[in-house]
Amino acid sequence: MPLKDSYLLPAAADMHVHLRNAPGPISQLVTPTIRKAGVDVVFVMPNLAPRPVVSVAEALEYKRNLQALDGDVNYLMSLYLHSSITPDEIREAKKAGIAGVKAYPKGATTNSQWGVVSFEPFYDVLKAMEEEGIVLNLHGEVPSSPADGVTVMNAEAKFLPTLRSLVEKFPKLKIVLEHCTTADAVAAVRSFGPNVVGTITAHHLSLLVDDWSANVNNYCKPSAKTPEDRRALLDAVVNSNGKFFLGTDSAPHDISAKKGKGNTAAGVFTQPYALGYVLTALDEALSRGDIPDDSVSDAVLRGFLSEYGRAFYGVPKATRNILVSRGTDRIPDSLKGEGAEIVPFRAGEMTWGVEWQ
Amino acid sequence: MPLKDSYLLPAAADMHVHLRNAPGPISQLVTPTIRKAGVDVVFVMPNLAPRPVVSVAEALEYKRNLQALDGDVNYLMSLYLHSSITPDEIREAKKAGIAGVKAYPKGATTNSQWGVVSFEPFYDVLKAMEEEGIVLNLHGEVPSSPADGVTVMNAEAKFLPTLRSLVEKFPKLKIVLEHCTTADAVAAVRSFGPNVVGTITAHHLSLLVDDWSANVNNYCKPSAKTPEDRRALLDAVVNSNGKFFLGTDSAPHDISAKKGKGNTAAGVFTQPYALGYVLTALDEALSRGDIPDDSVSDAVLRGFLSEYGRAFYGVPKATRNILVSRGTDRIPDSLKGEGAEIVPFRAGEMTWGVEWQ
Repeated sequence: MPLKDSYLLPAAADMHVHLRNAPGPISQLVTPTIRKAGVDVVFVMPNLAPRPVVSVAEALEYKRNLQALDGDVNYLMSLYLHSSITPDEIREAKKAGIAGVKAYPKGATTNSQWGVVSFEPFYDVLKAMEEEGIVLNLHGEVPSSPADGVTVMNAEAKFLPTLRSLVEKFPKLKIVLEHCTTADAVAAVRSFGPNVVGTITAHHLSLLVDDWSANVNNYCKPSAKTPEDRRALLDAVVNSNGKFFLGTDSAPHDISAKKGKGNTAAGVFTQPYALGYVLTALDEALSRGDIPDDSVSDAVLRGFLSEYGRAFYGVPKATRNILVSRGTDRIPDSLKGEGAEIVPFRAGEMTWGVEWQ
Repeated sequence: MPLKDSYLLPAAADMHVHLRNAPGPISQLVTPTIRKAGVDVVFVMPNLAPRPVVSVAEALEYKRNLQALDGDVNYLMSLYLHSSITPDEIREAKKAGIAGVKAYPKGATTNSQWGVVSFEPFYDVLKAMEEEGIVLNLHGEVPSSPADGVTVMNAEAKFLPTLRSLVEKFPKLKIVLEHCTTADAVAAVRSFGPNVVGTITAHHLSLLVDDWSANVNNYCKPSAKTPEDRRALLDAVVNSNGKFFLGTDSAPHDISAKKGKGNTAAGVFTQPYALGYVLTALDEALSRGDIPDDSVSDAVLRGFLSEYGRAFYGVPKATRNILVSRGTDRIPDSLKGEGAEIVPFRAGEMTWGVEWQ
C-alpha cells in the first residue's frame, strides 16, 4: 500500500542542518529554502570554517545573521565542542538559549579538524551540560584508521562503545546520536533511556553504499551502508516512539568542491526538499516490502517529522500546518546564487510539494 | 626494512589491461604507455563499446589495430563471453591464438550490459575451453541487489560459490579470478589446484574504501575494501607461489566520465606506472608492518611481475630486462591526447622510473 497522495501535517522540524557561514554565498542560497521544505525550526551545526562556533557570543552573532536571511525560522544554535569551552560557558549558553554542543571526532568529517580526540578532557563540560539540560550532539564515528581496521563502513559501529561509556558516565545528559546509518546504531539508541535519541537524515532512508560509490553528490559522512542498515533506519522511522526524529544533515557544498580535481567534499544537500525525500523513501520502502504495508500512519509522519524533535529540544508544538502533495514539485538540476551552485539530492526528479496552510 | 633503491627485473607482464577501442583517442594515448611501465606482454580485455569483442575475427582485427599503435608488445587477446559464442568458435579461437574468454556478470561493471546472468547456458562453451586450454577470465562479482543484501562491498565474496561450482564442474578449466580484492577471494583461489589463479591490481595494494569514497579517480569495480582485505592481497603478492600475478585492470576513462554531472565511471588508470605503484605499495606495507620485513625478495618481484603470469598463459620467459629505480619518475596530473584526457592513479606523486636494458 503506497502512501496517500497528500498529507496535512504540522510544520516540520529539521534537527540537524548546515547553513554555512552567514553572511556568505551558501547561507544566502540555502537559508531561504528551509521554509520551502515545510520546516520552521532547525538545529544549526557549528562547524564553520575557518573558525567553528565555540562561544556563546559567536553563536548569537551567527543566529542574528541567519535571522537576517529568514526571520520566520526558529534557529536552535549549537557550540562546537572544543578545549576553549568551559563549564561557565555552558551555563552562559543555557541562559542565552543555546540548545546543544556538537562533538566531532577529529578527522571524521567536514571541518572536524578542531574536533575531539578523547572525551575525558571534557568531562567537566559534559557534567555542566548534564546539569543545565544542554544537549550533546554526537557525530558518531571514529576516524578511519587502517591499523585499527576502521573504515567509513564500520566507523559508526566502532563509535558505539564510546556512546555507551558517555551514557554510563552522564546518565542524565541529553544525547543525540546524529545521522544514524546502521542497524547497530539504531539498536544502541533503543537500548538507552529517553534522554538518548537519534536523528535520521532524509537521504540515508534511500541511499546505499552503491549509490554513493559512483555519484559524488550522494557521498557524505557517515556514508550510506547496506540494505540491512537501511531497513533498520526505515524501521526506526516507523517505530520511533520518540526515539528517532528528522535531522537531515543537509550539507551544501559548492559544485566545485564536488567536482574539483581534488578530493570530494562529504555532504548531501537536501534542505529544500527534505520532506519529499523522506516520503519518497518511505514509498520506495513500502514497494520493496522493507516496511509493513500499514506502517506509515499520519501519526508516524507527524511524530518523526515534527513532534518528537520539538519535544526533545523543548520547543513548543507547531502552530501552523503544511499540505504535502505527491508529485507537485520538481527538484532542479542545481540551485544557483551569487558565487555558489549546489546540486541537490535526486536532482531532476519529481517530488512532493509543500504548501503552507 | 624498505625496498632496495633499484631492481633489475625481467620485463613485466600485465595480464589484465583495458586499451579501449582501436583506433580511438584513448587507445592512442594509452597503448604507447605499456612499455613505459616495463611491460612487454598484456592480456587485453574485450569489453569494448558499443560492441564487445565476441568473435575471433573481431579479436584479430583489434589485435592488428593495437599492433599499429605499438608493434613491440605481445597482445594476448580475449573474447567476451556471450550467447553468440559457440564451441566451434572456441576451437577457432585456439587455432588463432586467442588466450582467454572473459565473463562479466551482467551489470557488475563498465560495459557489462551484454554480460552473463547465469553460467549454465555456457556449459558447452566452457567444456570446449577446458578441452582446448583456453582460459576463463572471471570478473568475480555478483551484481548489486538490495533484496539479496549485495553491495559493492560484498559482491566479490558473494561470487565465490559460483567460482567453486565452476571449478567443480570443469576441474581442468584454466581460470583466472581477476582483480581479487578480498581476503575471501585470496583464500578461495588458494584452495584450488594450479589451474585456478588470481590476478591482483597495482592500485588494490594501496587503496581502501576510504580512498575511493572521496576521490573519483580511485573508484573502480571491484572496489577497494578493508585494511584486512588489503593485507590479504599484499600477502598474496609476497606468498604467491605462482597462484597470484599482476593484472592491473588499468582502466582509462576520459576525465569527463569521472567529473561529469552523471555517475562516475568505474576504473583506475595505472598503465604507465604500474610497476612503480606495486613497489610503492609494498614499501608502504613494509613500513606499516603489513608484510614481514624480509618478504619482498627479488624472486618475489620477478615471479609476481613477470614469470607467473607468463607461465600460466604459456608465454615464453622475458628476453629483456628492466631497471626499476626509486623516485626517478613523476606521475603527471593527467595524460592528454587528441580528444582524451586521463587522470592517472596517484597523480602528481614521485614514483619508480623504468629503464629498458
